[in-house]
Amino acid sequence: MLYSKSFIKTKRETPRGVNSINQALLERGSFIYQVGSGIFSYLPLGYRVYEKVRQIIVEELSSIGCEEVALPILHPAELWKKTGRFDEIGDELFKIGGNEPEFVLAMTHEEVVTPLAKIKIQSAADLPFSLNQISKKIRNEVRPRGGLIRLKEFNMQDAYSFHATEEQLDQTFTDFVGAYKKIFERTGIKAIMTEASDPGIMGGSDSKEFMVINPAGEARVLICPKCNRAYAFENAPKNNKCPEDNESLKEEKGIELAHIFKLGTKYSEKFDLSFTDSDGKTQPVLMGCYGIGLDRLIAAVVEESHDEAGIIWPKEIAPFAAYLIDLEGSQGKKVYDELTNKGLEILFDDRDVSAGVKFADADLLGIPIRLTISSKTLEQESIELKKRSEKETKLVKLSAINEILK
Amino acid sequence: MLYSKSFIKTKRETPRGVNSINQALLERGSFIYQVGSGIFSYLPLGYRVYEKVRQIIVEELSSIGCEEVALPILHPAELWKKTGRFDEIGDELFKIGGNEPEFVLAMTHEEVVTPLAKIKIQSAADLPFSLNQISKKIRNEVRPRGGLIRLKEFNMQDAYSFHATEEQLDQTFTDFVGAYKKIFERTGIKAIMTEASDPGIMGGSDSKEFMVINPAGEARVLICPKCNRAYAFENAPKNNKCPEDNESLKEEKGIELAHIFKLGTKYSEKFDLSFTDSDGKTQPVLMGCYGIGLDRLIAAVVEESHDEAGIIWPKEIAPFAAYLIDLEGSQGKKVYDELTNKGLEILFDDRDVSAGVKFADADLLGIPIRLTISSKTLEQESIELKKRSEKETKLVKLSAINEILK
Repeated sequence: MLYSKSFIKTKRETPRGVNSINQALLERGSFIYQVGSGIFSYLPLGYRVYEKVRQIIVEELSSIGCEEVALPILHPAELWKKTGRFDEIGDELFKIGGNEPEFVLAMTHEEVVTPLAKIKIQSAADLPFSLNQISKKIRNEVRPRGGLIRLKEFNMQDAYSFHATEEQLDQTFTDFVGAYKKIFERTGIKAIMTEASDPGIMGGSDSKEFMVINPAGEARVLICPKCNRAYAFENAPKNNKCPEDNESLKEEKGIELAHIFKLGTKYSEKFDLSFTDSDGKTQPVLMGCYGIGLDRLIAAVVEESHDEAGIIWPKEIAPFAAYLIDLEGSQGKKVYDELTNKGLEILFDDRDVSAGVKFADADLLGIPIRLTISSKTLEQESIELKKRSEKETKLVKLSAINEILK
Repeated sequence: MLYSKSFIKTKRETPRGVNSINQALLERGSFIYQVGSGIFSYLPLGYRVYEKVRQIIVEELSSIGCEEVALPILHPAELWKKTGRFDEIGDELFKIGGNEPEFVLAMTHEEVVTPLAKIKIQSAADLPFSLNQISKKIRNEVRPRGGLIRLKEFNMQDAYSFHATEEQLDQTFTDFVGAYKKIFERTGIKAIMTEASDPGIMGGSDSKEFMVINPAGEARVLICPKCNRAYAFENAPKNNKCPEDNESLKEEKGIELAHIFKLGTKYSEKFDLSFTDSDGKTQPVLMGCYGIGLDRLIAAVVEESHDEAGIIWPKEIAPFAAYLIDLEGSQGKKVYDELTNKGLEILFDDRDVSAGVKFADADLLGIPIRLTISSKTLEQESIELKKRSEKETKLVKLSAINEILK
């Protein structure tokens, strides 16, 4: 991508009224644009990051056999009345249509996915399976905050699993824990899993959260300094001591990235989602659900990985592989074309602005590698390479760049 | 994909109350699931088709330099009051929040994308550019109909372009016409472009529709039998004669697939979206917008491409490349693994059901190629190949399948 042809427009200063680090850096880098309180657009640069995160999630969930679906946002109100959540949830659930609301807007999808699963399930042989979607959720959040951390409209991966036995549910739960760990590893975030957490409006028998310990978080989490086990504050041991080694737990703030639930039969009973067992008896299906907030994950990466100059994107979710600057003034386009033709995603700063402006933008945008051409580097048929996460620069042969960026 | 592990569950009969061909076949094949009137879920099989359509659109719009963004669905009502459409549109626009609605649900995105474009545009040098998104739209459609043709919640590609001059707008309009033609060609649909059409609530100086002539459509279109030019009914020549050759126009029904608009300065003036020209004068930005209905495109493909036995998917948007049946009973999994390892998308019907049931499902699901293994074909180290669109079968060497499916 040529900078001059892109939608990128950086800002030196933090926009007024913005006091969240992720929002400040993402807005300054033109990754996102605020439409209203808790409502954002992803601009082209931010959408590239979003798409990479989405792709990682799709790959990892596909690898545990989870098929993708697309569920609607506009839900008939009667489905939510059936589970009781129409009244239970209160104002946070957007209701549409005056005094007798005909629809609600999806903040989660049990009410839609449970009846849908009926078309597949007759006997135990049809179980287990799981369905995944990545889609918008809308919630009448009274206090949106923290940039992309707490939103009115947000993007979630939410998967739902269906089982004949507790053992099947346990196995799928374990599979998802494994997949989620890989997802967080690939997106470059140090997530910890809590031992148990408050299931809230979801209900069910067991739930676990994935958190990143960070001051921008709003979740309270208790950590054992000895064994590193983490406990959600609401479900922590009563004496605030680790049940494993009796150490006093230390309170930290965490950003909640994901939440997984063993729902049991709560929803299947409401919608008569059942199967016939080997004795010919009708049994309710056991369910699980598994969600990651994509916007919040992106926010958490920025909160965790930045310095005073800007963002430092982990490699797999960076919008581009390298940021190319040509101080010499004639070879940049040629190098850009060569690298681009090799399938590398390069952002070439072809603007007629000072070197200082280019270096500052390279730091702000946080592309993992900066490549700089100068007459000095060209003399040695090389290019200067600097990792965004490191201070040192080194000279690399032009012919070797391809291998390095892979 | 193994049929036994998939979410596929076909029905022999058309569900009660369904009188649309696309809905009947898509529901019978478990591509879609109806959640409410005008509200559907895509099941895994349908989602595969949807994703292929989406990918084609992204590729073709990227090739004309259109960058992708993600805009919200929940729009602050004040944005729609600013353009006047909050009152103009009436009940079709979902308004949320009682007597003083705070939000509307997006049925189009001019109100969000126009202010957003301000962050990039200062001088004429920042123009032209275009932004694309593929996202949900929600509309309080009173009479949803025709399966996926007219929905309350639907998926649209909508792009917006920004220009300094009429010439730039004309050029982008031409680029989009070219991209749209390629998109329809790749999705296997015979789309025609009308000469001009009613811009409706969008406004602007010029608009064109892409239609497929089909009895399931609800648009009236007039075609010149001599030169094949098409005219939207509302904007047709007054005497119903072709202005080119004076032939009497023939009325047909069409499914509207896409609509493109030269919006001019309608929205940029409302939001003060302007640039400074070379004389230092402030000028309003010229805009265009370009939309394809993805669900409707899928519906149109099914309406156009089916027979009494089921759907006939065009190759590029088929959920799988081939449907594999093993009558011999021992070699299927091996052939499946071989083809899958070569990166081919194969649906292997590994169920313990009769050959007749398998052949019927293969026809209903409409996978372009059916591959059948029998002891007879194995004797010749071959496999029986039948195209879904043809009656004949032929024997193909196992070693050659890879090439054929590519």
